[in-house]
Amino acid sequence: MSRLKGFQDLMPAVMEVRWRIIEVVVQMGKRSGFKLMDTPTLEYYRTLVGDNDLGETIKQVYRFTDGGGRDVGLRFDLTVPFARFVAEHQHELIFPFKRIQFGDVFRGEKPQMERGRFRQFCQCDFDIVGVDGGSADAEVVALAYTSLQALGAGEFTIALNDRQITLALVRRLMPKLDAVAMDKVLIAIDKLAKVGRERVLASIVTITNAQVAAVEELLALLTLGDQLPLSEYSQAGVQERWQRLVSTRAEILAMSGGQPHEVVIDLAIVRGLGYYTGIVFETELRAAAELGSVCSGGRYADLVSRFANKPCAGVGGSIGVDRLAMHLAAQSASPPTTLMLAVVATTAREYAYQVARDLRSNGIAIDVDVSGKGLKQQLRYAHRQGYRKVLIVGSKEADTATVTVRDMETGTEQVLDLQELGGILALLHK
Amino acid sequence: MSRLKGFQDLMPAVMEVRWRIIEVVVQMGKRSGFKLMDTPTLEYYRTLVGDNDLGETIKQVYRFTDGGGRDVGLRFDLTVPFARFVAEHQHELIFPFKRIQFGDVFRGEKPQMERGRFRQFCQCDFDIVGVDGGSADAEVVALAYTSLQALGAGEFTIALNDRQITLALVRRLMPKLDAVAMDKVLIAIDKLAKVGRERVLASIVTITNAQVAAVEELLALLTLGDQLPLSEYSQAGVQERWQRLVSTRAEILAMSGGQPHEVVIDLAIVRGLGYYTGIVFETELRAAAELGSVCSGGRYADLVSRFANKPCAGVGGSIGVDRLAMHLAAQSASPPTTLMLAVVATTAREYAYQVARDLRSNGIAIDVDVSGKGLKQQLRYAHRQGYRKVLIVGSKEADTATVTVRDMETGTEQVLDLQELGGILALLHK
Repeated sequence: MSRLKGFQDLMPAVMEVRWRIIEVVVQMGKRSGFKLMDTPTLEYYRTLVGDNDLGETIKQVYRFTDGGGRDVGLRFDLTVPFARFVAEHQHELIFPFKRIQFGDVFRGEKPQMERGRFRQFCQCDFDIVGVDGGSADAEVVALAYTSLQALGAGEFTIALNDRQITLALVRRLMPKLDAVAMDKVLIAIDKLAKVGRERVLASIVTITNAQVAAVEELLALLTLGDQLPLSEYSQAGVQERWQRLVSTRAEILAMSGGQPHEVVIDLAIVRGLGYYTGIVFETELRAAAELGSVCSGGRYADLVSRFANKPCAGVGGSIGVDRLAMHLAAQSASPPTTLMLAVVATTAREYAYQVARDLRSNGIAIDVDVSGKGLKQQLRYAHRQGYRKVLIVGSKEADTATVTVRDMETGTEQVLDLQELGGILALLHK
Repeated sequence: MSRLKGFQDLMPAVMEVRWRIIEVVVQMGKRSGFKLMDTPTLEYYRTLVGDNDLGETIKQVYRFTDGGGRDVGLRFDLTVPFARFVAEHQHELIFPFKRIQFGDVFRGEKPQMERGRFRQFCQCDFDIVGVDGGSADAEVVALAYTSLQALGAGEFTIALNDRQITLALVRRLMPKLDAVAMDKVLIAIDKLAKVGRERVLASIVTITNAQVAAVEELLALLTLGDQLPLSEYSQAGVQERWQRLVSTRAEILAMSGGQPHEVVIDLAIVRGLGYYTGIVFETELRAAAELGSVCSGGRYADLVSRFANKPCAGVGGSIGVDRLAMHLAAQSASPPTTLMLAVVATTAREYAYQVARDLRSNGIAIDVDVSGKGLKQQLRYAHRQGYRKVLIVGSKEADTATVTVRDMETGTEQVLDLQELGGILALLHK
């Protein structure tokens, strides 16, 4: 009997990284006034999928009838249950409501485990709802920035866009496109970074029958960023949207302390079609572009109208915890506990425990032997765990209030009194 | 459309407490060399309930057929999936394996929400497997102790027992009891603290038809603790078990730094019948005895034989996170974020963000206005959130590198430069 296909056991080395990600993002979120909340893993099936949505998502929902005959399902993201939460508690919550939530979600899709795609995976979402305006957008993107920076994720780029601007560029050069063709063009544009300019050019020509020169002009415009000849785009709202995007970017930089090259405008970012109605963003790790975006999101005009009688706008981001963990695990493989205390005489156990207690209460992690086996076997255990130093305590050490410290790499040992020990361990923890 | 009956939305005030419990227990566990791990929420139904178990548990399991026709269920505790985990990864794990795990479990029982019993609730388990011996027992109980102490749970008592000793006491005074009556007597004894001496006495007399005097002698022995006339108990192993219990208690005190009255032997602790084979323990909060035990556990001779071909002994404890959270939430209702930054001029926003960034990067939590509304409305928001101080930044403050600090209780305001501000906030965070 083993675990279900597509599901993962989180071994200590992996779980350690996942925990650190959650802990850091929650800490950074709380520093910015985001409040932790959670919703149940199970919801009414109708809550999860609504009445109309007949897309791919439905097939992926774990759906069943519970013991009370209710049609229920496991949450497949942290957004839909949050919408139900906001609607249900709208009179208790204080708006603007800044939430942060982490938790597992479930999708019965074909697992691609080697690519880090499982049927159960962890997300960490943060949103500000009940408010419109670039400052909320900036706060959300800045939280993504400070979290990744605090995690030591290496160099990364956050790319911002407002899809309405991209739409306006396409429309001006190809005014006769119908809605279906327009959607296809936007989807093709979104692949620019992934498949390259030539393939996107070919796709758009096929979709639109446009002249190659026109498409080339479009693609050139999309990469101009803040050099855009805005005066030519007088359509309703486009210039305003552009100004807002530029000023949101400035606010993000002020709030996060990020450098201009780390937070950029990229008019080719589209991110799906239905959901977002304002700013959208994606985050790429310089050293792991193949992972795709590790943190994405955007602004939506309405979260809750399915559940409540008035709309509620918001902006949010989501960190792919498992995806990010793959990168961080590859980066740092050192075990979190690096010390062990070996006890080689039963009579020394009480002294040993006092030493361990002192260290632990000073924040130092130390694994104490509980096997009662001989020193050789205790050292073998320490070696397998990857511990760097073993403190050895026998009756001699107990009588003289000392410990013998063995360096696991060199095999050298030295006897230290407890004061000296503190100094050594402080060094080890630097 | 609302949430399912028996399930809870975790509002920020509650989730904050849950998070703190998990964070502290994980931190204390890691300091003692426990390793974080996790298993999927879904398992094969047969993994969860085995072939023979036809008890109450089965009816409570959320069971369904997944999209691939598999018979699956939601985990109802963190022990059974851990047994599957240990068996499946026995060649990768390093024994003794010390695990710590937190997560939600699911039981389709009748919810009693006012008593904190939900269909989905959070557990935090820690175990040491692959080892026998009192030192592992002591490490597990010491982790319970240090966690509750670090959480500021107030005064508490950890009560220890080895059920075999209780069994020997009963058997000596009532040698003719059959197995069924013996189980009933043990269950009656376990209720001693809850229902009182008189009712237990009456129960046992009814079950056994014994003389009242004999039962009175039994109940007197059960409360003697370490004054037990051991010489009269020469049955195989009883004296050894008693010695081991006494020495485990001493190890717990050495390892945790606890006082003798905080870790006691209580021969009336039984804790169910089938599972534990050595030490058992329970933890009662002095100020919230009505909650029942907030952390319980014990030693088991075998965890994995259902899943593997050799047994694996261990010892473990489990913290009832939701139950403990009810107590801690009642205790401390202060919001984690206590500061807000109000921005009263668009031109001051960049300066405001820099102030917020400085504070946050020094570990101070501050909620920044993102509404863009007037000061009055921003102050109203701060009041509703329970924030204690509001830093107000307008163009005057931006020009002079100052902030106006408003005390929300008294309404007084003072203008501080950024250096002074640091001092004030340090005070606030003490």
